Amino acid sequence: MDKNSFAITPPMGWNSYDYYDTTVTEDQVKKNADFMAANLKQYGWQYIVVDIEWYSNDAGTRREQFQYIPFGDDEIDEYGRFIPSPSRFPSSVGGAGFKPLADYCHELGLKFGIHIMRGIPRAAAERHLPILGTDYSAADAANPSSICGWNPDMYGCLDNDVGQAYYDSIVKLYAEWGVDFIKCDDICDSWMYKPEDFSGWHETRMLHDAIKKSGREIVLSLSPGPAHIDKAFHYQKYANMWRITDDFWDKWELLKNMFFRCEQWQDHVRAGCFPDCDMLPIGKVGAGFKESRDSRFTQDELKTMMTLWCIFRSPLMIGGELTLMTEDNLKLLTNKNLLQLLEDGWKAQQIMRDDNQAIWISKNERFGRRAAAFFNLSEDSSKVLVEQAVLPNEETVTATDIWTDTDVSLSVGSGIEVPAHGVKLYIY
Amino acid sequence: MDKNSFAITPPMGWNSYDYYDTTVTEDQVKKNADFMAANLKQYGWQYIVVDIEWYSNDAGTRREQFQYIPFGDDEIDEYGRFIPSPSRFPSSVGGAGFKPLADYCHELGLKFGIHIMRGIPRAAAERHLPILGTDYSAADAANPSSICGWNPDMYGCLDNDVGQAYYDSIVKLYAEWGVDFIKCDDICDSWMYKPEDFSGWHETRMLHDAIKKSGREIVLSLSPGPAHIDKAFHYQKYANMWRITDDFWDKWELLKNMFFRCEQWQDHVRAGCFPDCDMLPIGKVGAGFKESRDSRFTQDELKTMMTLWCIFRSPLMIGGELTLMTEDNLKLLTNKNLLQLLEDGWKAQQIMRDDNQAIWISKNERFGRRAAAFFNLSEDSSKVLVEQAVLPNEETVTATDIWTDTDVSLSVGSGIEVPAHGVKLYIY
Amino acid sequence: MDKNSFAITPPMGWNSYDYYDTTVTEDQVKKNADFMAANLKQYGWQYIVVDIEWYSNDAGTRREQFQYIPFGDDEIDEYGRFIPSPSRFPSSVGGAGFKPLADYCHELGLKFGIHIMRGIPRAAAERHLPILGTDYSAADAANPSSICGWNPDMYGCLDNDVGQAYYDSIVKLYAEWGVDFIKCDDICDSWMYKPEDFSGWHETRMLHDAIKKSGREIVLSLSPGPAHIDKAFHYQKYANMWRITDDFWDKWELLKNMFFRCEQWQDHVRAGCFPDCDMLPIGKVGAGFKESRDSRFTQDELKTMMTLWCIFRSPLMIGGELTLMTEDNLKLLTNKNLLQLLEDGWKAQQIMRDDNQAIWISKNERFGRRAAAFFNLSEDSSKVLVEQAVLPNEETVTATDIWTDTDVSLSVGSGIEVPAHGVKLYIY
Amino acid sequence: MDKNSFAITPPMGWNSYDYYDTTVTEDQVKKNADFMAANLKQYGWQYIVVDIEWYSNDAGTRREQFQYIPFGDDEIDEYGRFIPSPSRFPSSVGGAGFKPLADYCHELGLKFGIHIMRGIPRAAAERHLPILGTDYSAADAANPSSICGWNPDMYGCLDNDVGQAYYDSIVKLYAEWGVDFIKCDDICDSWMYKPEDFSGWHETRMLHDAIKKSGREIVLSLSPGPAHIDKAFHYQKYANMWRITDDFWDKWELLKNMFFRCEQWQDHVRAGCFPDCDMLPIGKVGAGFKESRDSRFTQDELKTMMTLWCIFRSPLMIGGELTLMTEDNLKLLTNKNLLQLLEDGWKAQQIMRDDNQAIWISKNERFGRRAAAFFNLSEDSSKVLVEQAVLPNEETVTATDIWTDTDVSLSVGSGIEVPAHGVKLYIY
Repeated sequence: MDKNSFAITPPMGWNSYDYYDTTVTEDQVKKNADFMAANLKQYGWQYIVVDIEWYSNDAGTRREQFQYIPFGDDEIDEYGRFIPSPSRFPSSVGGAGFKPLADYCHELGLKFGIHIMRGIPRAAAERHLPILGTDYSAADAANPSSICGWNPDMYGCLDNDVGQAYYDSIVKLYAEWGVDFIKCDDICDSWMYKPEDFSGWHETRMLHDAIKKSGREIVLSLSPGPAHIDKAFHYQKYANMWRITDDFWDKWELLKNMFFRCEQWQDHVRAGCFPDCDMLPIGKVGAGFKESRDSRFTQDELKTMMTLWCIFRSPLMIGGELTLMTEDNLKLLTNKNLLQLLEDGWKAQQIMRDDNQAIWISKNERFGRRAAAFFNLSEDSSKVLVEQAVLPNEETVTATDIWTDTDVSLSVGSGIEVPAHGVKLYIY
Repeated sequence: MDKNSFAITPPMGWNSYDYYDTTVTEDQVKKNADFMAANLKQYGWQYIVVDIEWYSNDAGTRREQFQYIPFGDDEIDEYGRFIPSPSRFPSSVGGAGFKPLADYCHELGLKFGIHIMRGIPRAAAERHLPILGTDYSAADAANPSSICGWNPDMYGCLDNDVGQAYYDSIVKLYAEWGVDFIKCDDICDSWMYKPEDFSGWHETRMLHDAIKKSGREIVLSLSPGPAHIDKAFHYQKYANMWRITDDFWDKWELLKNMFFRCEQWQDHVRAGCFPDCDMLPIGKVGAGFKESRDSRFTQDELKTMMTLWCIFRSPLMIGGELTLMTEDNLKLLTNKNLLQLLEDGWKAQQIMRDDNQAIWISKNERFGRRAAAFFNLSEDSSKVLVEQAVLPNEETVTATDIWTDTDVSLSVGSGIEVPAHGVKLYIY
Repeated sequence: MDKNSFAITPPMGWNSYDYYDTTVTEDQVKKNADFMAANLKQYGWQYIVVDIEWYSNDAGTRREQFQYIPFGDDEIDEYGRFIPSPSRFPSSVGGAGFKPLADYCHELGLKFGIHIMRGIPRAAAERHLPILGTDYSAADAANPSSICGWNPDMYGCLDNDVGQAYYDSIVKLYAEWGVDFIKCDDICDSWMYKPEDFSGWHETRMLHDAIKKSGREIVLSLSPGPAHIDKAFHYQKYANMWRITDDFWDKWELLKNMFFRCEQWQDHVRAGCFPDCDMLPIGKVGAGFKESRDSRFTQDELKTMMTLWCIFRSPLMIGGELTLMTEDNLKLLTNKNLLQLLEDGWKAQQIMRDDNQAIWISKNERFGRRAAAFFNLSEDSSKVLVEQAVLPNEETVTATDIWTDTDVSLSVGSGIEVPAHGVKLYIY
Repeated sequence: MDKNSFAITPPMGWNSYDYYDTTVTEDQVKKNADFMAANLKQYGWQYIVVDIEWYSNDAGTRREQFQYIPFGDDEIDEYGRFIPSPSRFPSSVGGAGFKPLADYCHELGLKFGIHIMRGIPRAAAERHLPILGTDYSAADAANPSSICGWNPDMYGCLDNDVGQAYYDSIVKLYAEWGVDFIKCDDICDSWMYKPEDFSGWHETRMLHDAIKKSGREIVLSLSPGPAHIDKAFHYQKYANMWRITDDFWDKWELLKNMFFRCEQWQDHVRAGCFPDCDMLPIGKVGAGFKESRDSRFTQDELKTMMTLWCIFRSPLMIGGELTLMTEDNLKLLTNKNLLQLLEDGWKAQQIMRDDNQAIWISKNERFGRRAAAFFNLSEDSSKVLVEQAVLPNEETVTATDIWTDTDVSLSVGSGIEVPAHGVKLYIY
């Protein structure tokens, strides 16, 4: 099984984190799945992902103090594997785990994903719980010197047979549940350890190997970023997507900064390998963080975000609650002209960027199509010059303006008026 | 109670680590105490210190794999405080703890010390054990993101009332036992954390405050090194001694390197405040490390070590098994001429050092005495020049050669023959 | 003029450095050009490059002390531009500069290149020499705080009009001479400055702009490495080739290490943009370094080097003296099977690498051809496994063994015997 | 000659930089000397120091662009030594150099000092000027890879006989002029080089050796800071004072930060060795920087500055123009109660510091006197607690309030009201 064979294009879906933080429930997940099936599926959206600490029974109960309660009340099976909190995911009781919820998504024609933390539960190691199919216990798999700097749940796994057996045991369980997507956290970058001391490198390989052994086509997504550009080969070899940024939120500075990140990673996008710009904070977000609110991005900034993610071919994971999306939001999420840039065959390139502007072009040799995006990163409406590099072999073309769906003439040397923080995107 | 009032001179004693590693027993400690009382006490030696993991029932049983067994079998009381392993320290049963052993030392006219790790046991936090005198549990005192990089027993304590209450609770217990000396580890330097992220800084203060509250005069010793020279004030404020080096062993490179370390710290030696060159690997060492052996230092190197430690006024902690000391070893440890340099009032200064030689002088204004040590750091016997700075106001003095106890003439401009790796030391 | 339009494939040529150091003369250059025209040209070799300090009259005269004599005797024109040393390049007198030598190469059907240092001569700045076409002097273009850490000739240029005018003035001169290739040094990486303080970034842009203004198709090559992978976009925008390694010499460690470097840069190879593995130390090298010697590489190591450079599509610059090449050397340099991998359309990828082995594959969609290289990085002859990824869609192919030019069967799961430090390369 | 024998107490004087920048003239220097002799000398003030670029004829003429004009018009003698600009220092003509000005100061009972940059003039090296008393030229002494990051005048000197000869030649000249104080810049810390690459370390030794050879008692002051605390021994061995801070100016953040710096260096103050808090921006400053203005410090902040400098025993160098001092300024500069803290025998210690307060105490065993300073670092007037450590052996003493010169009672446990950013200082 070749990991690059089942994630040919950037995964598109919804993730519970931006709206629910650690607290999402089965019912809430289902409503979002229903919405996606009814309104988004036909545009390519398909993943429903339950984010961090679905195994926590007390998640969110001490939010003023902790995002992740240390030594909290977590649900764990006899083999040291976290299982869904029964109060939050009622269908999971009796050993069912996430199977019923995954089935629900599958029946809607969607795919189902979960978040995990790198490693093995600290509680499992302390209690010496056995590892499935071995004579060893979690105490033999856990590296007590490898922890996550911001979440207290796990120890890293040792690079030995016992560690591998643990990873095998969890992925086997997830495959049985019907999981299609694993977002593994604390594994792509660590602020705590120097790169050479970070155990995430071998754990990525072990997780990849476990997926391969499971026989199920499970997409592997790595967090958090920024990924290390000098390790591009490592990510490409073992994962399907990896975060090129720390958590992305609805702040202009973060969005502007993403141009620099995409510039770095532009040559590393290919079938099965997607540098990831992180979730899209669009619509309502923040409820689980005790501040439910509309995304702070303006409509122009949302267009800029969607355009950059699409032309760069980042995975697209919606962060906002789907059932609360406005018409404007939905238009941005269902623009076929725009979303076609995610298709296989497109290859993008930034041809200029300075503090005020950026230009990206993309080419799809298969269909003989091209695209060009003109970004205005400054605080004022202004003109972006059509450089020769946009049209290396001609002076003028007729192009479709993606947002208005009208034809315009694009000429070398002309200036395109773009609003502040906004973008014009053409396909031709 | 002022911490500087009860460690006026550098503490002198014996520590179990170099010979026993994690495995020392009550009987072995007592034999060393007996020996000290009989042979060393009259020269100023007084501390008997039980080093790391006296609470571990399985210490040393998996030595080929682990120095410190992760998730091992440790003895812990109902308040989350480690207590002595009953199999190793039989007198500790029934809640007696180290009191009987401390009493034993006190009756011999000696003092008793123990090693602890910074923080609170991980097991206590996982089990939510209550903290003495509070309504809180260990889970509220433990910082799950603060671990030791090389020992898996503890979490760092949070800088809050609960964390302080835990430190108060352990020091109260130690004071009840009659402990006179605490060597706290993983608190002076951390290779794992950047200085600004290291929780050892506030934990040093909390431990100091707990000692103050206990009312008992307990010397506080911090490990491991190298201590941060830019934080000299911090160590001086809260501790009695702090390691200026990583673990010191019987290798010439480490001994030679100590000259550089003493150079850095020479101006920070004062009553109650002693930069610490670490234990003296003299005699038999290494049994607990599965390689019982004689110290690799030659007699000249041992002299160099003893001289540097004494003229610099480092604490002196013997690392070798006392009952196995040779006559030569004992002569080095009981040279009154040499040990007088530890007395209050001496102030030392390195006046030159290069790759081949070093000269230290010391002055005791109280007694009107001076000392000068001429070290040969090179691989060949050679002459060290008596610089003017050795005798700033005269040309010649009559001095006592410490090792031969004979009078010699010391003259500016003359050369003193010193063997390779050796030293000549004069008092005048 | 688009820089990517005239270096479609990796430049191939000869460079004077590895054999002559700073001392090469006109006569020696011509002999190498003659040899290339007669023996190598038909295989694609075309650049003749005069390396560092061709303007120095005393180059090499104090070699035991200096590689680059500080405040030495350099040839400089009235506009502060270095010109060839007349004693070493007799045809350059009377203002002719390198034109006669460039003409000589052109008549042989070859191209001519020179080495320069980033910036403006320190001597020009001290003497306030005028800058051509401006009212300013070199003192206005030079940044006195920007120097090279290992060569004392230059100051960096300020990022202003005067600095640009200086770069314009030198490239204008080089274009008049007929220069086809500029290797600019001290501009790709600096060990002296932190990246954010390094003036080489804007000087790369200025040099690129000067070439554009000159109207001549001059290849721009940047040294030394390692280039910064996070600045890939920068190099791609302004240069044709950039060193991904510090100076490469005939040591196995350096050759083995190149696999790691190519791994990092594999996705950044494209028409006009070539990460550069540095010169090929093959044949006789070192004469100018006072130790004329045969390359230390074995025949297997030379094959490994040639194969990696070719499949990765690095520029190829021969370092050894051409007129002293052996038959074996020439066979390696003129293997058409091998050199075809440099053609446009090939896209390579490392599919595995560990401490003992590496496998690279390449595909040329245009011609429907593929290649696979199996490297043995270990110290013993051993088998390299044909992974599924070598042949993703079939089990067996018939392939040409490049070195023997015979057909063999290549099957997934089979093991290919490769000598220590050697390689097997197949095209199919 | 022992350097520690002629700067027993912290040097006190005036320096031209804060008011004149690079532009001071002979006449201006004399007026300040006159003022000092008339009004300050009796309080211990004695050094008149001409700061940076007294050899520059065009200093200050392009101030909007450069503080230090690159490749500017500098006065240099036949041996590559800078000499005073004749237009600015008319008495220096005819080879007199600074002798007339030094004589003028000496006749007033003052001492005379000059600023120099580490190394040898770049112009001397370019011109191959001979080095006095040798057969070598400046090109043999200069290290072309060792420059200052912010001033373009010099190259560092090589660590060889020629480099030493150059240092000997300049100090010989200065000694002939009657110079009593050398402030050497770019030698105490370098932002440009990593510590291990910085040539300032050996140049400090060479300068010290040159002073020793000159036979004249010349105080050696090193700039800029922050000095490296781990190299305290180095500074102590070769210099009389060294800057523990980057340039100090009249900003509260810098003053508040100085408490941290003094905390670090408190144990390194002794006769002949003075960590230096930099010049006092009191009175009128900034004229040469094109913004002549009153010090931005409030009266309370000035008191805080003077108290910290004095109790810490920093050298005191007035930065403001002396002839423009107000009565209030002069009172601060001539408070005998305060200035006595600089006398030999005082030993200070910070006993507490947090973000809001700091307490320093000092003891003079010779005279049996003590001092205590209570600093309020916060933004509001508040009480500072008299800790037990202030009076370790008594409960109450009668003390003199330095500013009011009245007696008050100082009691452990009482609170001393101190204005925001202010200080109370007591001697008892």
